[in-house]
Amino acid sequence: MCRWMAWSGQPLIIEELLFKPPHGLVEQSLHSNMGVETTNGDGFGLGWYGDGEGPAIYRSIAPAWGDANLRELAAHVESSLFLAHIRATTGTAIQQTNCHPFRHGRWLFVHNGVVNGFHEMRRDLMLAVDPSLFPAIEGSTDSEVVFHLALSFGLDDDPIGAVERAIGFVEATAERHGVDNPVQASMGLSDGERLWAFRYSTEGRSRTLFSSSDAAAIRRLHPENERLQRLQDEDRVVVSEPLADLPGVWERIEESTVLVIQPGPDEHHPFRPRAPAQAAAI
Amino acid sequence: MCRWMAWSGQPLIIEELLFKPPHGLVEQSLHSNMGVETTNGDGFGLGWYGDGEGPAIYRSIAPAWGDANLRELAAHVESSLFLAHIRATTGTAIQQTNCHPFRHGRWLFVHNGVVNGFHEMRRDLMLAVDPSLFPAIEGSTDSEVVFHLALSFGLDDDPIGAVERAIGFVEATAERHGVDNPVQASMGLSDGERLWAFRYSTEGRSRTLFSSSDAAAIRRLHPENERLQRLQDEDRVVVSEPLADLPGVWERIEESTVLVIQPGPDEHHPFRPRAPAQAAAI
Amino acid sequence: MCRWMAWSGQPLIIEELLFKPPHGLVEQSLHSNMGVETTNGDGFGLGWYGDGEGPAIYRSIAPAWGDANLRELAAHVESSLFLAHIRATTGTAIQQTNCHPFRHGRWLFVHNGVVNGFHEMRRDLMLAVDPSLFPAIEGSTDSEVVFHLALSFGLDDDPIGAVERAIGFVEATAERHGVDNPVQASMGLSDGERLWAFRYSTEGRSRTLFSSSDAAAIRRLHPENERLQRLQDEDRVVVSEPLADLPGVWERIEESTVLVIQPGPDEHHPFRPRAPAQAAAI
Amino acid sequence: MCRWMAWSGQPLIIEELLFKPPHGLVEQSLHSNMGVETTNGDGFGLGWYGDGEGPAIYRSIAPAWGDANLRELAAHVESSLFLAHIRATTGTAIQQTNCHPFRHGRWLFVHNGVVNGFHEMRRDLMLAVDPSLFPAIEGSTDSEVVFHLALSFGLDDDPIGAVERAIGFVEATAERHGVDNPVQASMGLSDGERLWAFRYSTEGRSRTLFSSSDAAAIRRLHPENERLQRLQDEDRVVVSEPLADLPGVWERIEESTVLVIQPGPDEHHPFRPRAPAQAAAI
Repeated sequence: MCRWMAWSGQPLIIEELLFKPPHGLVEQSLHSNMGVETTNGDGFGLGWYGDGEGPAIYRSIAPAWGDANLRELAAHVESSLFLAHIRATTGTAIQQTNCHPFRHGRWLFVHNGVVNGFHEMRRDLMLAVDPSLFPAIEGSTDSEVVFHLALSFGLDDDPIGAVERAIGFVEATAERHGVDNPVQASMGLSDGERLWAFRYSTEGRSRTLFSSSDAAAIRRLHPENERLQRLQDEDRVVVSEPLADLPGVWERIEESTVLVIQPGPDEHHPFRPRAPAQAAAI
Repeated sequence: MCRWMAWSGQPLIIEELLFKPPHGLVEQSLHSNMGVETTNGDGFGLGWYGDGEGPAIYRSIAPAWGDANLRELAAHVESSLFLAHIRATTGTAIQQTNCHPFRHGRWLFVHNGVVNGFHEMRRDLMLAVDPSLFPAIEGSTDSEVVFHLALSFGLDDDPIGAVERAIGFVEATAERHGVDNPVQASMGLSDGERLWAFRYSTEGRSRTLFSSSDAAAIRRLHPENERLQRLQDEDRVVVSEPLADLPGVWERIEESTVLVIQPGPDEHHPFRPRAPAQAAAI
Repeated sequence: MCRWMAWSGQPLIIEELLFKPPHGLVEQSLHSNMGVETTNGDGFGLGWYGDGEGPAIYRSIAPAWGDANLRELAAHVESSLFLAHIRATTGTAIQQTNCHPFRHGRWLFVHNGVVNGFHEMRRDLMLAVDPSLFPAIEGSTDSEVVFHLALSFGLDDDPIGAVERAIGFVEATAERHGVDNPVQASMGLSDGERLWAFRYSTEGRSRTLFSSSDAAAIRRLHPENERLQRLQDEDRVVVSEPLADLPGVWERIEESTVLVIQPGPDEHHPFRPRAPAQAAAI
Repeated sequence: MCRWMAWSGQPLIIEELLFKPPHGLVEQSLHSNMGVETTNGDGFGLGWYGDGEGPAIYRSIAPAWGDANLRELAAHVESSLFLAHIRATTGTAIQQTNCHPFRHGRWLFVHNGVVNGFHEMRRDLMLAVDPSLFPAIEGSTDSEVVFHLALSFGLDDDPIGAVERAIGFVEATAERHGVDNPVQASMGLSDGERLWAFRYSTEGRSRTLFSSSDAAAIRRLHPENERLQRLQDEDRVVVSEPLADLPGVWERIEESTVLVIQPGPDEHHPFRPRAPAQAAAI
């Protein structure tokens, strides 16, 4: 499967989170503790909002731990909202167009998990993608198709609902194909302003996903930790597995919920996939 | 666009054709004379029949001229039937799954040219691919879709007819979309026994394609040329552009024809695309 | 050989110079007009000063024209001083450690040209590199060795003198080896504050090198050109060949001179290589 | 560090050893049991003797487990003598020229281990390489330098003695530099006729290295195992760690010894590094 992380908060040199913590994402590419695979070496990607128009993405098929360019970028790019992803393929080709984040306009999307039965359902799922979006599918992953289903089902107007419809549509398709437990997913999504962190699986046993606690609480808990003392109130990290073993710093995102990180108070919502009415008829 | 070549004949160390001729295919990757682009540096591929089961493919996104591994393989792999292709992308991603040859079972396929309007027709074309073959499409090129259309339309039983139906289907789809001159193609195809070389474009002005002349004739014409004296009667090369400027060695493959290279006398056939009856109804 | 460019001036999204001009550096990677080779497809590099500590480098063995990540970075990184380089190898391996710019501390260095006879002189040249710098040589190019010679011969204290001694040492070594015309070089160097552009060859027939004219003069000459009207007085571009064919915009850097671009008036100096006293004794 | 394997015997499709055994080398790239690192994902290489002149090498910076081309080659290249290596870098760049096997003429060389203190000793070690061989060093690893020292110290005439002198020279150099335990090495070497497997470390606690037992004995021990029944008397495998957990199949190569696999009876010799007289004076 994969691992991912996201940052929303004060502008940060990316390596502060990607390389410097004891169990940062790049370290996880070699030694993941909580993932299905220990090694996530089938490429990686970094997407960030900053200078220039729209989000930037840097994706490579090299393992994250060994890519000299990732080390350079992380040390020299500053961003107040970024997502990073390390990949362990579940069978599809190792190529840049299969690396996360996927991008459409201002949107970035990452996925850890799998669509079981994707090989046999791929055609049906791709047919449900809006024909105007179909040519934008460049790779061959389940994740990219899920993202394009969400785009097709109204991501711009109703992000959570669109992802619920996308996942619901995958589940409805799986039922027709006789595929059990089709969806296993922790997903990150951003439009550059807000950051959504979804945790869901059909069987209700999803991959781990954590967010950092309230910054003020973290500062109180760890008065001696310089790095943590620099956290500001709006700073928030989302991670597949904790970046360090520090009590009180990480909160588990619950099954079948989505965390919305945004200016002002963040929000927790239930996440209840259901197929869209029109698509169910396909 | 691209350039390609193919060999059918006595077992040959591949570099004899790929690297050693004055204007071999690797040289063409840097300096093509007859192609639309001078440079064909967006990856390459080599497919060969030899040891092991079925054809082998080696594909890379590096330019052919600079790939150390291609030089190694070409110098150390012997084959009596191989195809090589150098790519100049017409817009789709530079990735291994977009490099030719494409393979299915014992089949290898290469294409130089373009499907105009592919971006907008991609969905319709992919829908016509047999659902059992759909998941095997790994890349995003027009060429791979054309190959899978041919596989869907009976390549195993009637190779020329299947390619005619594939191209015919593309032309019919283009007509519905209002796309002019949709197909520009020189194509190579092999099942390990025979080699088909197609030259066709909707507008009747196709990319160049040549085959070597009858080996006996070449030997008579160039008694002083050691390399050519080693040619045996069944040896035949197909090339996008001649590997060397030698009188009497190259024969132009005519517009809208296909050359079939096989044990015994080779054959020239007309090539007349027409949409398959069932698919036209989509 | 190669092509390179550099910018010093107001903060700029890098693509403004790398991709947008009609004959920008990435276009030159495919179609160079003034270089020895038309194609500069054996990797590239971008070095910039901006966020984070010291200069950043992004180097890749892909051709610049086809690298999706370069397009992303150029569109989303802003810098007031950067150098870019496209490579056409003169024989050494295509690998990231052979791509320019080379970096040491705050220094960036690019080179277009060749050290003739480098293969046979490599050992002697490397021996003259300061032993403490020797392990920092990661690749196998002549350019990286020249850079490390300059570092060994006092780059920090006397940049022009150090490069003169480095080139002088190469020439003295060549003489001992009986190599004619050893140095062909246009070189760019920066410490993040100033930018040096050297043009020199032993035979006095150097590769082309241009700088943009005085910004005020350019604005007066092209009142209708919006892009040029945005130029500020301290803005200066250095290029192997002009980015566009605009009268009065480009000034040839003279043979055996070095242009120093810096806050305040820029400077032209003669460039007169001579071997350092101590090294000549090796 | 790394893992490697070698085959000498009847002609074999390479995947039979590289991919098919339960714990084949490609599986070890992801999950090594006996190595210092679990993951050996920093590139790999395959060298084989077969068609064409001299040995072929295929090297890539991709992890072995994910390289589609390695899978192709292994399934379609047959060889009676080959070496394969998977790399875990100890600090030097991930690039093809740092991947094993290294080649010179008919020689192939692989190394698992490290030269401690290499960074500071690199210059002294490279200076001892014969000046005529110096320019052939393309990468930046300790292993390539050790190989070139062996070539400089008489590999062609006295392979074991030359490697003893190379390692001895490294140890003598380390002593001058105050480096403890400089050499940790299991090494494979072949000239296409014979195969040498060295196991040595200065401290006498070397990385594991095994060879397969006498083929007749293996066949008697495992009458039900079809694959093993196909072994012929001259077949021999050398591996960093066993390819499968089968009693009586693997023999540990002893500390400070070298196994010589050759037509007729194989030989075990002591391996006793000592600096060559002339080089010690440097």
